[in-house]
Amino acid sequence: MPPAIDDSTLSQELRRGTLILAVLSALGQGEQCGADLRTILGAAGLPIEEGALYPMLRRLETQGLLVSERRFEDSRVKRFYTLSAAGHAAQHTMLAQWHALSESLKRLNGAQQ
Amino acid sequence: MPPAIDDSTLSQELRRGTLILAVLSALGQGEQCGADLRTILGAAGLPIEEGALYPMLRRLETQGLLVSERRFEDSRVKRFYTLSAAGHAAQHTMLAQWHALSESLKRLNGAQQ
Repeated sequence: MPPAIDDSTLSQELRRGTLILAVLSALGQGEQCGADLRTILGAAGLPIEEGALYPMLRRLETQGLLVSERRFEDSRVKRFYTLSAAGHAAQHTMLAQWHALSESLKRLNGAQQ
Repeated sequence: MPPAIDDSTLSQELRRGTLILAVLSALGQGEQCGADLRTILGAAGLPIEEGALYPMLRRLETQGLLVSERRFEDSRVKRFYTLSAAGHAAQHTMLAQWHALSESLKRLNGAQQ
């Protein structure tokens, strides 16, 4: 008997790559702190846990796509994230790739769409 | 100095989840052998190496999303793949998810689109 179909795993794989593009896109409009980034992503239909967002932000910063800065605001210290020039370039590259993937899926699904 | 930006890794992450949906979509039209599946995916703009396709097909079959059968055709034995009922369901679920992710990305990119 095969293992139970894990739709959630397939969905997570589809979602994972998209989330990076979503984070870069959300920062494409300008600097954000992590909490506001979660609000923006949630409002766009992509809620993300703190435990997933912060490691991703650290990874993107290590890759040189983001820069971050700690500042005092609203009576506390927050970290703010901004896209680097490389981050803007990556956002545009990935967005173009997303459109190309969408076209491929449309072709494959044809009349089913 | 941060490590070099690895655009290709980001692109691969975006592509990986999509490929599963693409394979399910290509099989949504009916049974295919691996070679024809590669032709269909390539024609849709998603070329895939044998070394990536065959492990994915085995994994999808183990998960119960595909069934396969070896048959003699064109003077040789080939393996043909068909979506199971669960595979059709997964294809529709993932396609709906793709559309939802597309809407989220459109919202996040706003006027940049």
